[in-house]
Amino acid sequence: MILTVTLNLALDVTYEVPALVPHSTHRVSAVLKRAGGKGINVSRVLRALGEETLATGLRGGPTGDLVLADLTAGGVPHDFAPVRGETRRVVAVVAGDATVFAEPGPVVNAEEWAVFQRHFTQNARAASVVVLSGSLPQGVPEDAYAVLTRLAHEAGAKVLLDTSGPALTAGVLAGPDLVKPNLGELREAGLDPAALPGALVVSRGAEGLLAAVGGRYFEALPPEVLHGNPTGAGDAAAAALAVALRDGAPWESALAEAVALSGAAVVTPVAGEVDLGLHRRLRPLVNVKEVPCPW
Amino acid sequence: MILTVTLNLALDVTYEVPALVPHSTHRVSAVLKRAGGKGINVSRVLRALGEETLATGLRGGPTGDLVLADLTAGGVPHDFAPVRGETRRVVAVVAGDATVFAEPGPVVNAEEWAVFQRHFTQNARAASVVVLSGSLPQGVPEDAYAVLTRLAHEAGAKVLLDTSGPALTAGVLAGPDLVKPNLGELREAGLDPAALPGALVVSRGAEGLLAAVGGRYFEALPPEVLHGNPTGAGDAAAAALAVALRDGAPWESALAEAVALSGAAVVTPVAGEVDLGLHRRLRPLVNVKEVPCPW
Repeated sequence: MILTVTLNLALDVTYEVPALVPHSTHRVSAVLKRAGGKGINVSRVLRALGEETLATGLRGGPTGDLVLADLTAGGVPHDFAPVRGETRRVVAVVAGDATVFAEPGPVVNAEEWAVFQRHFTQNARAASVVVLSGSLPQGVPEDAYAVLTRLAHEAGAKVLLDTSGPALTAGVLAGPDLVKPNLGELREAGLDPAALPGALVVSRGAEGLLAAVGGRYFEALPPEVLHGNPTGAGDAAAAALAVALRDGAPWESALAEAVALSGAAVVTPVAGEVDLGLHRRLRPLVNVKEVPCPW
Repeated sequence: MILTVTLNLALDVTYEVPALVPHSTHRVSAVLKRAGGKGINVSRVLRALGEETLATGLRGGPTGDLVLADLTAGGVPHDFAPVRGETRRVVAVVAGDATVFAEPGPVVNAEEWAVFQRHFTQNARAASVVVLSGSLPQGVPEDAYAVLTRLAHEAGAKVLLDTSGPALTAGVLAGPDLVKPNLGELREAGLDPAALPGALVVSRGAEGLLAAVGGRYFEALPPEVLHGNPTGAGDAAAAALAVALRDGAPWESALAEAVALSGAAVVTPVAGEVDLGLHRRLRPLVNVKEVPCPW
């Protein structure tokens, strides 16, 4: 089983409006509500691939209940630990383009964080791979992903870390098996790719993936430029890499899978969904080659 | 007791952001949640005046629960009937000015509407005046306020109607004792002021009130132009007029109260609140005079 962790869970709310006019009042024509968060997207893609997964993290209040109900309805197994604060909403006002308003979310206290670590350890024991995704909620220590990486390793699971900023900088110190930032996140965190103990896979949007593994470097390029919704493409890549990590797949095949699944996510309108037909078509066409050190 | 009716209840959510930039992602710095709706504002003002009031209407889902909790916390007595759909949210993104996104709200079915009519009748029996405020939710018939006006009259209560559009056009046919649209709403509904059976009080923003009562016409002007938040000023006027209707106060004094209380609402940042000191100061300064027919 692949365990995904979403500490900063969200209810993604979409407001459809004919046009966004600042300083005016809009009648929203349609309201869509959906469980949100990077780990959630990873679990959804794993489910679409027929892989066993469990989504965990922190949830609170009536909005947390709505998120769990959506996961249940979508067939995504979940086991979240409760917090007293209320799960945040991320409101996207869509009029062609999206304008997004992200609530700050609950402040997690020390006891809740301690309870979660025990909850996480229980679930990690049943997992072959743990995927740690996204930002940290307020109150959780900056080294949270380092703590969870150590607990996962003690529980016998491999770890894939996909986050940014200080959470990434602190998280890599515990030696996750695979780190998957995008190029901007890698630079922002000031990480030296050569100094990372595990594998590094950097997503570069339409330019595919770059990987550093045991002193070798690979580039994986999609066969065509795909247009659509880039949100969730990185999470689809994380899902493919988690499966490869579990299976001990060769890096060339892992990267090809990740690029093909990213492409299959870009063409769907909703993060966490993939076009499996496109995935099958792209898979043999992804070009993976060893390259000299790009850093 | 003055019964206020808010059929299209809302949770007013305020998102504070440093600036609104369309097509970008905003981190919301503060989230405020508050019970919203015109009838709610009327009840809040009545509470501030020390008058007995009860707020009723339709509420549903976890968002409905949040609205009721806020009313309870604010000391506003309430007795709402449940619907299966979820109470809507009205999100105001505030960066200096407000940009507002109003969810459409639940669709009320015929059985829920029938249940509410019985619920309303029970409460109307204990009321001297019923205030019918605001828009109608989806699924409720256009003549809803006419139906409630008849039920209120049968229960022995007077009726003040403050709405707009087709709900206003249909509502006046049942003969509410006082109709209080603003000038735009009056024109939009295509009403002939001379044809209304009850009293008509038209709010004209900073230019005070205009009233048509039994073939006589009055103008009530504030002593000074007040700056601030006009939202809720009309509801404060409705609160004053409901008290006057209950007490059978002379129209000159009713209009002076309404203008003074409107002004006391404009200077407060939040709809439903009034500055009682300013109300006392303005009250004797409001200029009410009989005028020739303005239509």
